[in-house]
This record gives sequence, structure tokens and C-alpha cells, in this order.
Amino acid sequence: MKVYGDRNSGNCQKISFTADFLQIPYQWIDIDITKGESRTDAYLRKSPMGQVPMIELDDGRCLAQSNAIIRYLAQGTSLLPDDTFTQAKIDELLFWEQYSHEPYVATSRYHMVYLGRSKDEREAWRVERGEKALDLMQRLIKGRMWFVGDSLSVADIALLAYTRLAHEGGFDLNARPDVKAWIMRAEMALGLPPAGN
Amino acid sequence: MKVYGDRNSGNCQKISFTADFLQIPYQWIDIDITKGESRTDAYLRKSPMGQVPMIELDDGRCLAQSNAIIRYLAQGTSLLPDDTFTQAKIDELLFWEQYSHEPYVATSRYHMVYLGRSKDEREAWRVERGEKALDLMQRLIKGRMWFVGDSLSVADIALLAYTRLAHEGGFDLNARPDVKAWIMRAEMALGLPPAGN
Repeated sequence: MKVYGDRNSGNCQKISFTADFLQIPYQWIDIDITKGESRTDAYLRKSPMGQVPMIELDDGRCLAQSNAIIRYLAQGTSLLPDDTFTQAKIDELLFWEQYSHEPYVATSRYHMVYLGRSKDEREAWRVERGEKALDLMQRLIKGRMWFVGDSLSVADIALLAYTRLAHEGGFDLNARPDVKAWIMRAEMALGLPPAGN
Repeated sequence: MKVYGDRNSGNCQKISFTADFLQIPYQWIDIDITKGESRTDAYLRKSPMGQVPMIELDDGRCLAQSNAIIRYLAQGTSLLPDDTFTQAKIDELLFWEQYSHEPYVATSRYHMVYLGRSKDEREAWRVERGEKALDLMQRLIKGRMWFVGDSLSVADIALLAYTRLAHEGGFDLNARPDVKAWIMRAEMALGLPPAGN
């Protein structure tokens, strides 16, 4: 399997977190989206969406969208339990992450880390929604070990990717102690170094 | 099953399209989000995300996120073929719809239909991204009957919901003839009246 991605992107890191945990071998191919490398004709033939991450299986079939990829890789493993309602609750969080968390928490980080804006130059409406997303995570994880069921799942991996980097987007997790504890737990389970939250 | 939703919301209509097609009985409960009915304590106890649509199974378990719901309802039916890579390609479009289509095409419609703005009062950046999403749909569906595989799937239902209402958000599909033909095909397969595109 080949993984096309940007090593500094949380969406791309979801793939390496999942593949490393499941010991799935892969070749990582760096794609610099700021240089248009995901918009070349060759790339668009593989994935018309023109986004990272994207995986290419050994038989040439390609798949984009970070949460679709990790869900696919996790089939039949502990990261995606067989029970269909449990899978649906995982999906609920995967869709929530992409719609109500990533566009605010990750995009604010993008503006600071990639575009060099200061914390005060972030967009207020985006910051407000990011804060709300992190608040909801605190309510959901309080009293629990993992977001769905009793073990680490792809829902945790999807939510972890940008939540552990939230400080790089100007967000403070100190008022969300259960989110911080969950980050440490998930980083340990995945063998990741602490991201510094 | 109970479905909590707004009948004029494409995300909510995905549930009725899917349940009606699969002949799954349900009770529809109207939720007026403009009156805060998805943010009451009773609603938040069922679904902390505070959004519509949401389903409540007969045993009381609840599930939110439109695409997670239709994927769950479609398990074991023709709308979600068993092959795992086919499912992953469906997921790819479900996530793309929520991240790269709905926030632009549906939100522009929300501004016009719910908030009463004129076509010229839409946000330019949102319109531009909506146009790009519809252009990509035209490229993907050209030469095909359905978006994934050889039959109607939940990917078609997810994409159909707001694409068939795109004109209500000021978008013109006349330059996307294959999208228009697919809309007619999908509406016919689902037994829906033409939305007027």
C-alpha cells in the first residue's frame, strides 16, 4: 500500500496512526499541497477529489478521505468492532469530526502553522465553533476511557489527530481535563510521543 | 423507530428517502431547530450533538449524523453492497459530501430559504466552493448510472438530497447535464417527485 500525504496534517497522520497500530506495511509518499502536488493530472487520475490523504492499494485501486481510509483499514480488527450499532456510533463521531470539529480546530491550526497567522488573527466564528466542539468532547469523554465502547477505536484516532494539536491552533485544553487525560491514554495506546497538550 | 427531523432539511430527507425505499416503518417527529427544539435538555440527553436528523430505535438507543444513519439503515441491503472496498468508496463520497458539498451547496440554500437572503447576498467563497463541488459531481457521474458500483447506493442518496435542491441555493445545474440526468434517475428510483432542477 502507498499512502500519499503531508506528514504535518492531522488528517494524514490518522492513516499512519492506524496502519502502524495494525502493523500494516506501507510506503509513505510526501505530497506538498502548497505546491499543488495533489492537483496534478497524475494525482487527479488516482483521486479526482485532489486531496490528501489518499491510499493506493497494491492492485492500483485508490481511496481518499481520511475517515473512509481508516475505517477501511480497520475492518475486522479491534479498532472497528463487528457489532453494527457500535460501528454506527463510531461513524456518528467520524462524521461529526469532519463536519463540526476539523473545519474549526484544524483550520485554525492551518491558519497559524501553515499561513503564519497569530492567535489573535484567527477567525472569531471559527474559534467559537472549535471551542464548542472541544467542550462537547469533554462532556462525551467524562467518565469514559474511549469514545465508543470499551476499547480504542477509529473514532478515537479520528478525534485524536487534531485534538492533540489543538494548542497549535490557539486552543487551550486545560479546562477540559478529561480530554487531556484521554489524549495521553490514546497517545500511549498508539505508541505516540506526547504532542504537548 | 422514531426519526427526529425537519422535513425541509436535505440531511433529514436522506433518512426518509432511505427508510421509505427500504420499507422500514418509522414515526416522524418534527423538530424546529429555529425554535431551539434540538437543544432542549430532553433532546440533548438523547443526542448530545443537538442536531437533526436523529433516530431513536425501539429499544431507546439513539443515533445522529445523517450519513451515519443511512449507512446503518442500509446494512445488508442493496443500498450498501457487502464488498468492503465498495463500502469504502461509498464512505469516501459520504465524507466528501459532508465536508466539501453540504457546507457550500446546502448552507447557501439555508441562507436563501431559511434566512430569506437573495441570491446576490450569498457568500462568494461559499458559492465558489459549491460550484466546484457540483463540477466534480459532473466529472464523476459522466458515463455512469450511479456514483458507486452498478446500482443505487447510500452514496447516491446522500449526494441527491441537496444536489436536487441546489437551485434553491442559487446554483444552476444546466451546465452539468449528467448530474441533471442522474438526479432524474435517482428521484425515479426512490419514487420522489421531481424537485425542479
